[in-house]
Amino acid sequence: MAKDNKITFYDLAISTGATISPFVWATKYALKHKGFDLDVVPGGFTGILERTGGKTERLPAIVDDGTWVLDSWGIVEYLDATYPDRPLLIPHESVAATLKALDHWFWGAAVGPWMRCFCADYRDLSLPQDHEYITHSREKMLGRKLEEIQAGREDRLAGISAALEPLRSTLAQHPWLGGSAPNYADYRILGGFLFTASVCKTPVLAPDDPLRDWLDRCLDLHGGLGRHPGLFPLFGLEQREGDVPLFNRQGGLGGIYKRNTGPASTQAETQKITQGMKQPA
Amino acid sequence: MAKDNKITFYDLAISTGATISPFVWATKYALKHKGFDLDVVPGGFTGILERTGGKTERLPAIVDDGTWVLDSWGIVEYLDATYPDRPLLIPHESVAATLKALDHWFWGAAVGPWMRCFCADYRDLSLPQDHEYITHSREKMLGRKLEEIQAGREDRLAGISAALEPLRSTLAQHPWLGGSAPNYADYRILGGFLFTASVCKTPVLAPDDPLRDWLDRCLDLHGGLGRHPGLFPLFGLEQREGDVPLFNRQGGLGGIYKRNTGPASTQAETQKITQGMKQPA
Repeated sequence: MAKDNKITFYDLAISTGATISPFVWATKYALKHKGFDLDVVPGGFTGILERTGGKTERLPAIVDDGTWVLDSWGIVEYLDATYPDRPLLIPHESVAATLKALDHWFWGAAVGPWMRCFCADYRDLSLPQDHEYITHSREKMLGRKLEEIQAGREDRLAGISAALEPLRSTLAQHPWLGGSAPNYADYRILGGFLFTASVCKTPVLAPDDPLRDWLDRCLDLHGGLGRHPGLFPLFGLEQREGDVPLFNRQGGLGGIYKRNTGPASTQAETQKITQGMKQPA
Repeated sequence: MAKDNKITFYDLAISTGATISPFVWATKYALKHKGFDLDVVPGGFTGILERTGGKTERLPAIVDDGTWVLDSWGIVEYLDATYPDRPLLIPHESVAATLKALDHWFWGAAVGPWMRCFCADYRDLSLPQDHEYITHSREKMLGRKLEEIQAGREDRLAGISAALEPLRSTLAQHPWLGGSAPNYADYRILGGFLFTASVCKTPVLAPDDPLRDWLDRCLDLHGGLGRHPGLFPLFGLEQREGDVPLFNRQGGLGGIYKRNTGPASTQAETQKITQGMKQPA
């Protein structure tokens, strides 16, 4: 299998040359994680069915020495099952389960809202032959004109950034979602950020966002796979007065992740919450 | 270690006898998962420092043959490191990372909001000697009278239930967050539901919520550990007109988890989103 260590990868790109779909981005990282070289078949949204000889209407899709594999999760499962001696993408089935839940949250909290912030730009950046398809299909999905959906995004970006605390608090404790090394958990979530970077004509995260360290390390992986010149900067959003804080500057100081190491670690909080009580707890 | 297979467990309970803290609940399951018997030291919030001989102000805390271990994550790490031949709670470090992110989301989406829906009931259900501490500390944390915070909960319960789709979609694909068998990912999230069941004088989830199957299986684990007679029913919330749907009845039919198995699996969606286009995509 994988003759000359090459796997055929059907890309889904826009006019900048950058990959666009979060799932196609995640798949690209997954193939590199397994150590494969990519034989890239370029293209956009129009004509996927023709390009793949009738095999699929949607990407990602790969061909491994004649074997077609579809669907981002289908591809991950295939790669780990077929090449178990190469670095695992999903090292335990529990990672798949918790990651799917996390990804579902991330889609609703960030990827979907960002998509609505940049949907007209997205169409304008797509390949000329894809303009009509993107406009038509996204307006059917989202129910309004792309320009209307995108309008007012500057009032929504702070809230989306603020919603990402679950990732910030975790990545303050672990170098990667994979633990001490990246795996598909990182790539899957990264895919949503890379989709956004493909289209975000204005930045979506604060310059000093704690996620920047993890994101920079992700972009550097596999020979700088995420350092595509067509991507827009994610970092540079300014904190506006009246908006929610772009991220929690007290992150890690309290909340459910503070470790109890004995009375000295909790005294300050205890004093704060019991101040004024008649008798000690 | 663990003489006679017993570990000392400092409980944190209310007047019904039910454990109250999500973290103490999760720890109880963790100890049972590792196959230990519990030597339970009963008690509530008041006097933890005295009860533990000055070792800690917060629970969970365990003592394993003289070794004190604090903090829910600290205990999990200790148990897996000390007893690696017993069933692992965290089978890979990536499970810890993705679970912490998921737990952070779950706390903000459900446990915190439910706590605010039942905070006065919570105080009333606590041990008599804890009433003042609960009232005082929670009002300091939450900034208002418990009765004011709790008021109007019937208008908030539908939204909290609706927010749990990331768990529903995952548990439609995997029997447990642990994959094919439960692990600490299940217990950690379960802890939030059991906290809620300890105090929810009105139900918080629809009778036919898809989460019911997983929750019922969780409660049955380890000899019915979650079948405590002091718990209130989680299921029984009625769909009110005008509220958001309590759960997505189309769950699994679309969205990011539908598998692409070829053109036949995507045709209906393609037709829907391209209907009216001049030329096919």
